[in-house]
Amino acid sequence: MLITEIERFIEEDIGYNDISCTMVPDKMIDAVIFAKEDCTLAGLDEAKAIFDYFNIKAQTNYSNGDELHTGDIVFTLRANAVSVLRSERLVLNFLGHLSGIATITRRCVNLVRLYSTARVACTRKTTPGIRKFEKMAVVAGGGDPHRFNLSDAVMIKDNHIKMMGIETAIQAARCASFTQKIEIEVESTSNALLAAKMGADIIMLDNMDPAGIIRTIETLKHEGLRESVIIEASGGIVPDNISEYAKTGVDVISMGSLIHKANWTDMSLEISTDN
Amino acid sequence: MLITEIERFIEEDIGYNDISCTMVPDKMIDAVIFAKEDCTLAGLDEAKAIFDYFNIKAQTNYSNGDELHTGDIVFTLRANAVSVLRSERLVLNFLGHLSGIATITRRCVNLVRLYSTARVACTRKTTPGIRKFEKMAVVAGGGDPHRFNLSDAVMIKDNHIKMMGIETAIQAARCASFTQKIEIEVESTSNALLAAKMGADIIMLDNMDPAGIIRTIETLKHEGLRESVIIEASGGIVPDNISEYAKTGVDVISMGSLIHKANWTDMSLEISTDN
Amino acid sequence: MLITEIERFIEEDIGYNDISCTMVPDKMIDAVIFAKEDCTLAGLDEAKAIFDYFNIKAQTNYSNGDELHTGDIVFTLRANAVSVLRSERLVLNFLGHLSGIATITRRCVNLVRLYSTARVACTRKTTPGIRKFEKMAVVAGGGDPHRFNLSDAVMIKDNHIKMMGIETAIQAARCASFTQKIEIEVESTSNALLAAKMGADIIMLDNMDPAGIIRTIETLKHEGLRESVIIEASGGIVPDNISEYAKTGVDVISMGSLIHKANWTDMSLEISTDN
Amino acid sequence: MLITEIERFIEEDIGYNDISCTMVPDKMIDAVIFAKEDCTLAGLDEAKAIFDYFNIKAQTNYSNGDELHTGDIVFTLRANAVSVLRSERLVLNFLGHLSGIATITRRCVNLVRLYSTARVACTRKTTPGIRKFEKMAVVAGGGDPHRFNLSDAVMIKDNHIKMMGIETAIQAARCASFTQKIEIEVESTSNALLAAKMGADIIMLDNMDPAGIIRTIETLKHEGLRESVIIEASGGIVPDNISEYAKTGVDVISMGSLIHKANWTDMSLEISTDN
Amino acid sequence: MLITEIERFIEEDIGYNDISCTMVPDKMIDAVIFAKEDCTLAGLDEAKAIFDYFNIKAQTNYSNGDELHTGDIVFTLRANAVSVLRSERLVLNFLGHLSGIATITRRCVNLVRLYSTARVACTRKTTPGIRKFEKMAVVAGGGDPHRFNLSDAVMIKDNHIKMMGIETAIQAARCASFTQKIEIEVESTSNALLAAKMGADIIMLDNMDPAGIIRTIETLKHEGLRESVIIEASGGIVPDNISEYAKTGVDVISMGSLIHKANWTDMSLEISTDN
Amino acid sequence: MLITEIERFIEEDIGYNDISCTMVPDKMIDAVIFAKEDCTLAGLDEAKAIFDYFNIKAQTNYSNGDELHTGDIVFTLRANAVSVLRSERLVLNFLGHLSGIATITRRCVNLVRLYSTARVACTRKTTPGIRKFEKMAVVAGGGDPHRFNLSDAVMIKDNHIKMMGIETAIQAARCASFTQKIEIEVESTSNALLAAKMGADIIMLDNMDPAGIIRTIETLKHEGLRESVIIEASGGIVPDNISEYAKTGVDVISMGSLIHKANWTDMSLEISTDN
Repeated sequence: MLITEIERFIEEDIGYNDISCTMVPDKMIDAVIFAKEDCTLAGLDEAKAIFDYFNIKAQTNYSNGDELHTGDIVFTLRANAVSVLRSERLVLNFLGHLSGIATITRRCVNLVRLYSTARVACTRKTTPGIRKFEKMAVVAGGGDPHRFNLSDAVMIKDNHIKMMGIETAIQAARCASFTQKIEIEVESTSNALLAAKMGADIIMLDNMDPAGIIRTIETLKHEGLRESVIIEASGGIVPDNISEYAKTGVDVISMGSLIHKANWTDMSLEISTDN
Repeated sequence: MLITEIERFIEEDIGYNDISCTMVPDKMIDAVIFAKEDCTLAGLDEAKAIFDYFNIKAQTNYSNGDELHTGDIVFTLRANAVSVLRSERLVLNFLGHLSGIATITRRCVNLVRLYSTARVACTRKTTPGIRKFEKMAVVAGGGDPHRFNLSDAVMIKDNHIKMMGIETAIQAARCASFTQKIEIEVESTSNALLAAKMGADIIMLDNMDPAGIIRTIETLKHEGLRESVIIEASGGIVPDNISEYAKTGVDVISMGSLIHKANWTDMSLEISTDN
Repeated sequence: MLITEIERFIEEDIGYNDISCTMVPDKMIDAVIFAKEDCTLAGLDEAKAIFDYFNIKAQTNYSNGDELHTGDIVFTLRANAVSVLRSERLVLNFLGHLSGIATITRRCVNLVRLYSTARVACTRKTTPGIRKFEKMAVVAGGGDPHRFNLSDAVMIKDNHIKMMGIETAIQAARCASFTQKIEIEVESTSNALLAAKMGADIIMLDNMDPAGIIRTIETLKHEGLRESVIIEASGGIVPDNISEYAKTGVDVISMGSLIHKANWTDMSLEISTDN
Repeated sequence: MLITEIERFIEEDIGYNDISCTMVPDKMIDAVIFAKEDCTLAGLDEAKAIFDYFNIKAQTNYSNGDELHTGDIVFTLRANAVSVLRSERLVLNFLGHLSGIATITRRCVNLVRLYSTARVACTRKTTPGIRKFEKMAVVAGGGDPHRFNLSDAVMIKDNHIKMMGIETAIQAARCASFTQKIEIEVESTSNALLAAKMGADIIMLDNMDPAGIIRTIETLKHEGLRESVIIEASGGIVPDNISEYAKTGVDVISMGSLIHKANWTDMSLEISTDN
Repeated sequence: MLITEIERFIEEDIGYNDISCTMVPDKMIDAVIFAKEDCTLAGLDEAKAIFDYFNIKAQTNYSNGDELHTGDIVFTLRANAVSVLRSERLVLNFLGHLSGIATITRRCVNLVRLYSTARVACTRKTTPGIRKFEKMAVVAGGGDPHRFNLSDAVMIKDNHIKMMGIETAIQAARCASFTQKIEIEVESTSNALLAAKMGADIIMLDNMDPAGIIRTIETLKHEGLRESVIIEASGGIVPDNISEYAKTGVDVISMGSLIHKANWTDMSLEISTDN
Repeated sequence: MLITEIERFIEEDIGYNDISCTMVPDKMIDAVIFAKEDCTLAGLDEAKAIFDYFNIKAQTNYSNGDELHTGDIVFTLRANAVSVLRSERLVLNFLGHLSGIATITRRCVNLVRLYSTARVACTRKTTPGIRKFEKMAVVAGGGDPHRFNLSDAVMIKDNHIKMMGIETAIQAARCASFTQKIEIEVESTSNALLAAKMGADIIMLDNMDPAGIIRTIETLKHEGLRESVIIEASGGIVPDNISEYAKTGVDVISMGSLIHKANWTDMSLEISTDN
């Protein structure tokens, strides 16, 4: 996290006149941050960067992706009381939000592993302003971050196809740069086949049911095109139905719901002694 | 939304080389944004600001807080194709995230209204970087935004009390400025009574069960202090148990879960004609 | 002061090519900052933050709000000569400007204390870009910072009343959030009474002469409403007439002139030895 | 004023939740800004930039530097009520602060003109963050802005001389760039003579009394060096004693007090009709 | 170009007190920008964005990538004189710098086309702060922008290999995300073969002479791995020797020299009439 | 270099997900940066600031302006591997670009020194966003930075003269501020003479051939005006013809080509040991 980012977050949470923080005695305190529910941990780097900014000595025994149980102490802190109070909410908001994302991701990855080695990926449906942190939380949970923005892979979506057609779109994308993979979103087996023939690197089967996905993969195999493409299933996939997708043989299962339906993990900061 | 904010969000979503957007034909298109599930709408101002930035002509028949049904068209758009594609994900992320918050808020408000006129409020547990938008989504859903940051009301929490005691804390807060209300978080009836006597404006009963809340309110009434304070219940309140709190007679029910457990509303942008 | 703020101020004062600073010998020097006139000190935190940024070792025996006499040494410094010269004007501008504000504030507070415990407060009439520092200088001088911006208390002013009427305005404000006090600006006793009945938290008597203020307070007492509101006098109050307002029994005397008519305190940096 | 600057000022004054502005009826209003005391006007460009940002139609019959009398209408405005209320304080703070500076500058210039064509200049003692606006206010009042920062002229001050001596300092400065004038601050006639011989472009006689200044100028004339340098008097000059300096024959009189002792001009915004 | 970017560039070029611009008469003028030497044009979008910001009406008959001859008029302008003068240098710096890059790129592309369809690409050796503009200038000249930063493709370079070995590095990269191509920099045929077997998408032959490249391609063909990888030649390639690389059969020729050795195109702005 | 600047450059080069950097082992490494060709060194301060930001221990035996030979080690580094890889390209881009500028500047200065003490200066034709670094590279090479932006000296150019005439322009500029030198660009001896008579400080002979320059200087001498002005030659001067200008007796030779035709110096970072 850049210093300019940290300061923007601090301004948001503190404002101009933080009476409650400044009225406390100016002394060193000890504190802990602990989990109030089981979770997969994420957000450690963000927390550390914020503690550093405030000159708070913070120690942890955990790494991103570790499984925590209720009561586990994530950080032990030693610092000036004012600094701890100023950092508290910001750190907890990052830890709680990002661990929530890691937790649902881990759960999905575990469900998939029963049937498949497919990757579980998020999408560009992320909270404005903190995408990179959310994607790293997905990675902490064992998932794949997928592309970060419009520039790090070419994705040809329904609206592009409507305007240009599959062939033109793929050709234009290939022209643009040899460094980026070309992903295309299709809704039918025939278009998946066409895209594979045109040389797409990744074919996303959008809103296709598991049966349709299986049929599409069979068709691609039959045409000898299965190995040259990565197959991604997407659209309406949630923990409750992810197993069905895992069984289809796709390479990637991408889910907006890793972000959309993640509930924050409850964590708390407690001043353990005040001497 | 400030232009500097919009540009920060755009940089995050677009990056440096958005091949997929720039390869489409340079022509005017029509498009619609529609709801794919029922929701309480929020995020209209953010969407309009983004459309303005991109010179996209956008029309809506709705206001923040309106109830939408699956299929309702939130915006009709007319603009250059590149601009629409560049704005698409950012606008949908705001609409989806904020409408999700408004939706759960409205649901809670409606549950409370069966028993009480108590306000439903969020907290400072918000996603870093977009608090003001999330709080406005709570308002769209009929809720109260609560304080925005450490500076717009004094809140004395458990950690402050541990370091200073209730009396010292309230006195320090009163000294600081006559313009801000003083809220104090207590966990027992006796401390609630002490806080009321000391002149706190708002008493937050933290993690107190409904029976305890009722007893506390009775005690305050008995001491003639009920009218001079606002009573807020907080801690572990979710839609499933909110009715029990509504029946206690508190003035405010505050819930981190309006943000933490909000699921995004699914919305989509479709290019309706491309002529 | 945030690092991003410090750097903005540095860019303003230094520009791109500070020949005069860079041509001096690269060696450690000692220097002092001293007061060239009596004052109430403010700006220590800003000065320290700037010294920190430049790796200047700075020591002071004073705290914000201390009374200084001509010749008192505010800071002793030890650092690289270039750093001292680069920080000099910026630090002196903060110390001089903010101490000037603290000094006039202290003078007003002392005048009021002869007759009353009323608070002396500033307003939102502050120099664009540095409000938070100016408000803290008022606090250093013993004053109250009043609200910091449009969001940390609701103030209903003449222009609001002209458009909405007192009742509608107060009702709208009460609806908006339970966390903020509602202040209303009135120019007559009858409106003060109306505002108190409507539940305003703070009533500002705008441009009312001391006799009018006394009459208004009497009327409120008579109606049993004096205790439930904070009474603030404002408009045209300066050190020369503040005593008359102090005698009226108001709770707060607010003065744009704490900023508007503050003269800077003269301070100087002198390199004491250059070995 | 840059958009990024305007937005920073707006954030400072509005914050995140401006209830008072948003609760007013959403309609077009007319308003005026008028002077509540005589002044020399400055800040028009800043006001216009802010009005533009808020889409407020603003008209004025005045230019920066015009003399205003109590009651003169500076701007007539027509716009949405919310926008007017959001811009009000920020615009008035610029107009009031900057017109105060222009007013004292004009007064000094008029005093000087009785005896001399000397320029009246400000210094780098300006309010952090808004130097360029304050310097332009000095220009509006008929003054000279002097250098803007450490990079747009070389000024050799007492602390430089203490470390390097006059000769070395001037030589180093001349080496640095041919594009910048070299100004040197001296406190004695002999050093003024030395500086002139070394080729300084501007000699600032620091804290020298009028008699000393006259003697120094005589000496320079005697040595044939008067025409090749600009002579600037500085240090402790205020309106009350400026005439004495004007009579000495200096070319420039520079005064921190144009900023330090400027009192804001009182201006007010009034909604004239609300239909 | 974002508004925040434009304003940063403007601040750099204008500073706080642009006397030369503001002293000109306030009237509308016509002006032209013309080429003073033959070039391949780039920078039109940047120029237009700057003109827009200054409300300058600008027309051009050209597109990025067009071939210009000495005297060709790139833009005709109509605007207020002050605005034209303020924008002049910034626009010319973009046009001159970027057209210089497009010109050398086009020259290289033309040389390659005599023998091959290989792409000519730049690298991450770009001027700090304006990479995206420089890469787009390469595209204007017919080149490939290559990756924009460390995040939009994985490149395994000599230093990575030294620390991890080829196998470990490629495996780690494949694990990280399915959306990014993996490029590896090798200096020998045997390592190229190993990388291809490990599934690298792009193999960069670093500092390999044309004969070595030909041998390596032959070996890959012999192993049946030529079709599955993109072969990129890099290291010390300049216009004078590019033909030798074009003849080797590589897919991509990447050259830091498209930026490093680009000379600016000379362009000029001339006020054509001033009525 | 400000921290906000460093972070902007880092964001540009790293992006959101630098897989290649983060996958390397987390251990301390040693590395060196060395020159791959002879050069005049510049960019040390920028490199050090970046290393500092990344907590990289960096040592150098050189100063800006030193002559380096192929193989010379500019920096020895010791740090965490990830930090070194993250800083590598950014540091090399600064060192390579700026040393290229210093190198051509030194070459020009050496050519001039054979005949003259004239300064070699750059212009405002610099790469947008990094002018201050480029100008300092010119200084490192022994050149003069010339003015940094429109505000640190007044330059009256052809377009100003076309609109205002020489006399009006110089008078307006003299009025504006006594702190800035006035430079005027002329194309004829007669205008040079007129400008000198009007009191211009610097006369730039634009696109005048050496013979014309000699004639103009003679004319000025004849009129007794040579000593009161600085004569600058500019326009089309490159290393190949600079000697001819050096012989004319001008005071300054300014060249856009110090930036425009500078080729980057090739430098490389090598991990020397990885234990």
